[in-house]
Amino acid sequence: MQVGFIGLGQMGVAMAANLLRAGHETTVYNRTRAKAEALASAGAKVADRIADACRGEAVFTMLADDEAVEAAVYGDGGVLANLKKSAIHISSSTISVALSKRLAADHARAGQRYVAAPVFGRPEAAEAAKLFVVAAGEPDALRSAAPLFDAIGQRTFPVSDAAEAANLVKLSGNFLIASVIESLGEAMALVSKGGVDKNQYLDVMTSTLFGAPIYKTYGKLIADEKFEPPGFAAPLGLKDVRLALAAGDELQVPLPLASLLRDRFLTLLANGGDKLDWSAVGGLAAKDAGSTSGR
Amino acid sequence: MQVGFIGLGQMGVAMAANLLRAGHETTVYNRTRAKAEALASAGAKVADRIADACRGEAVFTMLADDEAVEAAVYGDGGVLANLKKSAIHISSSTISVALSKRLAADHARAGQRYVAAPVFGRPEAAEAAKLFVVAAGEPDALRSAAPLFDAIGQRTFPVSDAAEAANLVKLSGNFLIASVIESLGEAMALVSKGGVDKNQYLDVMTSTLFGAPIYKTYGKLIADEKFEPPGFAAPLGLKDVRLALAAGDELQVPLPLASLLRDRFLTLLANGGDKLDWSAVGGLAAKDAGSTSGR
Amino acid sequence: MQVGFIGLGQMGVAMAANLLRAGHETTVYNRTRAKAEALASAGAKVADRIADACRGEAVFTMLADDEAVEAAVYGDGGVLANLKKSAIHISSSTISVALSKRLAADHARAGQRYVAAPVFGRPEAAEAAKLFVVAAGEPDALRSAAPLFDAIGQRTFPVSDAAEAANLVKLSGNFLIASVIESLGEAMALVSKGGVDKNQYLDVMTSTLFGAPIYKTYGKLIADEKFEPPGFAAPLGLKDVRLALAAGDELQVPLPLASLLRDRFLTLLANGGDKLDWSAVGGLAAKDAGSTSGR
Amino acid sequence: MQVGFIGLGQMGVAMAANLLRAGHETTVYNRTRAKAEALASAGAKVADRIADACRGEAVFTMLADDEAVEAAVYGDGGVLANLKKSAIHISSSTISVALSKRLAADHARAGQRYVAAPVFGRPEAAEAAKLFVVAAGEPDALRSAAPLFDAIGQRTFPVSDAAEAANLVKLSGNFLIASVIESLGEAMALVSKGGVDKNQYLDVMTSTLFGAPIYKTYGKLIADEKFEPPGFAAPLGLKDVRLALAAGDELQVPLPLASLLRDRFLTLLANGGDKLDWSAVGGLAAKDAGSTSGR
Repeated sequence: MQVGFIGLGQMGVAMAANLLRAGHETTVYNRTRAKAEALASAGAKVADRIADACRGEAVFTMLADDEAVEAAVYGDGGVLANLKKSAIHISSSTISVALSKRLAADHARAGQRYVAAPVFGRPEAAEAAKLFVVAAGEPDALRSAAPLFDAIGQRTFPVSDAAEAANLVKLSGNFLIASVIESLGEAMALVSKGGVDKNQYLDVMTSTLFGAPIYKTYGKLIADEKFEPPGFAAPLGLKDVRLALAAGDELQVPLPLASLLRDRFLTLLANGGDKLDWSAVGGLAAKDAGSTSGR
Repeated sequence: MQVGFIGLGQMGVAMAANLLRAGHETTVYNRTRAKAEALASAGAKVADRIADACRGEAVFTMLADDEAVEAAVYGDGGVLANLKKSAIHISSSTISVALSKRLAADHARAGQRYVAAPVFGRPEAAEAAKLFVVAAGEPDALRSAAPLFDAIGQRTFPVSDAAEAANLVKLSGNFLIASVIESLGEAMALVSKGGVDKNQYLDVMTSTLFGAPIYKTYGKLIADEKFEPPGFAAPLGLKDVRLALAAGDELQVPLPLASLLRDRFLTLLANGGDKLDWSAVGGLAAKDAGSTSGR
Repeated sequence: MQVGFIGLGQMGVAMAANLLRAGHETTVYNRTRAKAEALASAGAKVADRIADACRGEAVFTMLADDEAVEAAVYGDGGVLANLKKSAIHISSSTISVALSKRLAADHARAGQRYVAAPVFGRPEAAEAAKLFVVAAGEPDALRSAAPLFDAIGQRTFPVSDAAEAANLVKLSGNFLIASVIESLGEAMALVSKGGVDKNQYLDVMTSTLFGAPIYKTYGKLIADEKFEPPGFAAPLGLKDVRLALAAGDELQVPLPLASLLRDRFLTLLANGGDKLDWSAVGGLAAKDAGSTSGR
Repeated sequence: MQVGFIGLGQMGVAMAANLLRAGHETTVYNRTRAKAEALASAGAKVADRIADACRGEAVFTMLADDEAVEAAVYGDGGVLANLKKSAIHISSSTISVALSKRLAADHARAGQRYVAAPVFGRPEAAEAAKLFVVAAGEPDALRSAAPLFDAIGQRTFPVSDAAEAANLVKLSGNFLIASVIESLGEAMALVSKGGVDKNQYLDVMTSTLFGAPIYKTYGKLIADEKFEPPGFAAPLGLKDVRLALAAGDELQVPLPLASLLRDRFLTLLANGGDKLDWSAVGGLAAKDAGSTSGR
């Protein structure tokens, strides 16, 4: 297929490379052009303007947040004004439910199609085309986009005809991860002050009930208080918890654990944690307990 | 070894049977004698009194709570008064850190040995001798008890010389499970009110980031609102969260997520949930959101 | 002074009447014209359009929320486009810190002046010109507006040169009130389930430590479970807690009690409480405790 | 009346002095005898043993906590073993609901009477005989004790026939105060980081909606970060919140705000706050917000 790709961060560049590898003619755009050029050798056309990435049957956006997506979509030079009739805007960014809903409506009005397709997976998974794609939108649009999802991921989960449902699933997934971080942080603060070695504790837990990689990965970071460099930075964690709460607010679903997480992230950021990995939230319980790090 | 076993609930009966199967001469005691007699055909001696279960090299207690353990241990007819010098009291009940500490001191004073050895695993795992044993106490006592642990579990984790550390680990583990229940409850309340099918959502989550059986098991119960019959009853869940908080209080470790869980359990019990499985805590977020069950 | 007044709800109509009473030439505007006409007999000029209320030295806006204020201020027919140079926009609505900041900047750019002057007091206080005015903005603007504040209130508190500080104070004040509601709700749920009469309890508390009218007023509503008709509706309470949290988010100030309140308001609204007084939040603790009302 | 008084801390000594002043023959006992002797010049008989303070028609206990009261009441030399038939034990200590209930039952069994009569008021109020007495117990016992309450307080509130109800009211009152501390702490952290002077803010709030002395007193301590010397020490604050939660646990009343307060107190104590006034809890929100004190 002919496809555009807007947003070449760590995730985007890997996803675009896999589209190329799967044989899709891919035109890439990035605000900082250098990142786009790195893909030229892999066969990508490099666009100077967003509009030039919107000529094909589909265009991905993989950007940092609502503001970045709005900037790319709206305005004369944006996706909305330049995408062909029936072409599909595939939004893979982790954005708000509200914006996704608005994009769906605006594209429909313009005779275009819109699919929300956020992904689960770290950059390594993106490079290996092993992402999980959570997709939502009109069934025909999902069908059309399927080969593209196959190119970037190991499995696609179609969750709804309403595009914003995919964003809701993505946000709730990140909320679940943040909950794991908080619960491990509290548990380790407790057992550690009670004299149990944190790594040994983690070994017990992950060898028995909590074998999921997420417990191993985040548990290790918390046990070792190794919050730098960030794999997923704390401000992004706050953003996603905030968006989950905003979705809960809109739907009138109180989320007390998400509220607790939001307060934790704010505490972290207010105390110099903006460059840390979001797992640093898991270090706050020990701080509240007056436990000083051995480091 | 010659060993006694006090407390033949669903877990205890399976553990005692495995001790017998492994060739240990086992004398069993239960307040309701009928349960003890069921083990006679498997070779158990049935004791009429606690004292008679205390004649060997070790005696297990596997009872409901602090009160039950105190009742079995203290007093003229209790474990403390009847256990031989150097014999080991192996406490596998999920009890408070404070009581475990007190038992360690009292047995030491009496020239006896004490090991805290709570277990992870449901009754099926107990039957299959597949429990995980978290053990703490003096190294020589742990060594002496090792063959017994091998008879009931698939792996033993020695976590500390201080017996109560094992209880702390056990309590924190149950806190982690309760945290999973709460986080899944909130996430499902959110996506479900947003139009996503709960089972489909669970499939996405457990197929991607949260593959641990615990997410599958509890997620399914919450998605189906199937909280009866209880596998682990809500009042026991409250008890364990309460004990984790008590340990945190003693050690001065604030545990805001555990506090949230405690309030959830109280809400559940105050509204008729005392016969439900503790996963019913995962149904409260949906209730707060005004979502009515399809049932 | 020549002054305009936009927004004639229960509060606005009383404030405009007091401006007239104090001798200020007042032009009033309301989306629903009937409410404006009611003031004509008191000497008000009735404007057909917002622009016509912007001809004087100052114009008040007293509207429901950010959206209403934005609609009144921006656009060709709005306050910003029609206010004279050096004239003052006095914003008395309870709006977000962010919008107040933006209004300050936009008016400055247009050569106009801007004062944030939210008020404390119920409609009765507004009628009696007994409001408390919390005012912030450039000192000269505050000086110019002083006679107007004197006309509507019993005392003016100038809190900062930065207009949005007044909004922050107002929001935090409403947060304090909501905190009183929650604390009374929990306390009464506790003592009441313990057998103490709620009204008698309230009498003890307000006769001893908590003599402030706010404890008497809200305590009585909660004790009697009399949440209708709303004096200040629950959705407005949620709005203000939400704005306090948004301000905390922007300033990186975690507010766990405000988070708790937000979840309470969402629970209330999700369960049919949108027509109730915000004191109904004080009834939720009893509901969680499974206490059924005597009514 | 002939009366005994056990426990001569800051509060007790003032209460005993007022009993003497009102003409009651008072025998005083304190573990540290020196404090008792100070009352001899005012006419008190000084008892060497608790038993000697139990010879009259009534005996007050005014002690630090459950442990101290249990130590004074139980055992051969205690109140229970030495009080005459029909004489009244008046328990003014802030103790648990559970202990109060147990005392009521044990005294009834011994043919004695029991009244719970905790008080509201700081030491100055105790000296001026201006305490508020919250009293509960059998009506005849309350009637008999009335002259004693009149001697120490400005007003007595009989709240129930069940003695422990008075303790519940006292605990819930301290919970309300702690809630004021937390809410002021959060509000001030917010406005202060937003550029508003904390003392000026407090002036606005206490001049308008929150005129109660409690807002002025605690607000001032928080604004000035003046948490030493303690008027009411943080560990006592934690104790009372813990007892309120324990009562809630027993009655199945979830108290999320009390849970938050408990975590705050633990954080304070875990970080060196055990010698501070309980209002120091109101300084934690600013700390979480990364706001550094000017001191």
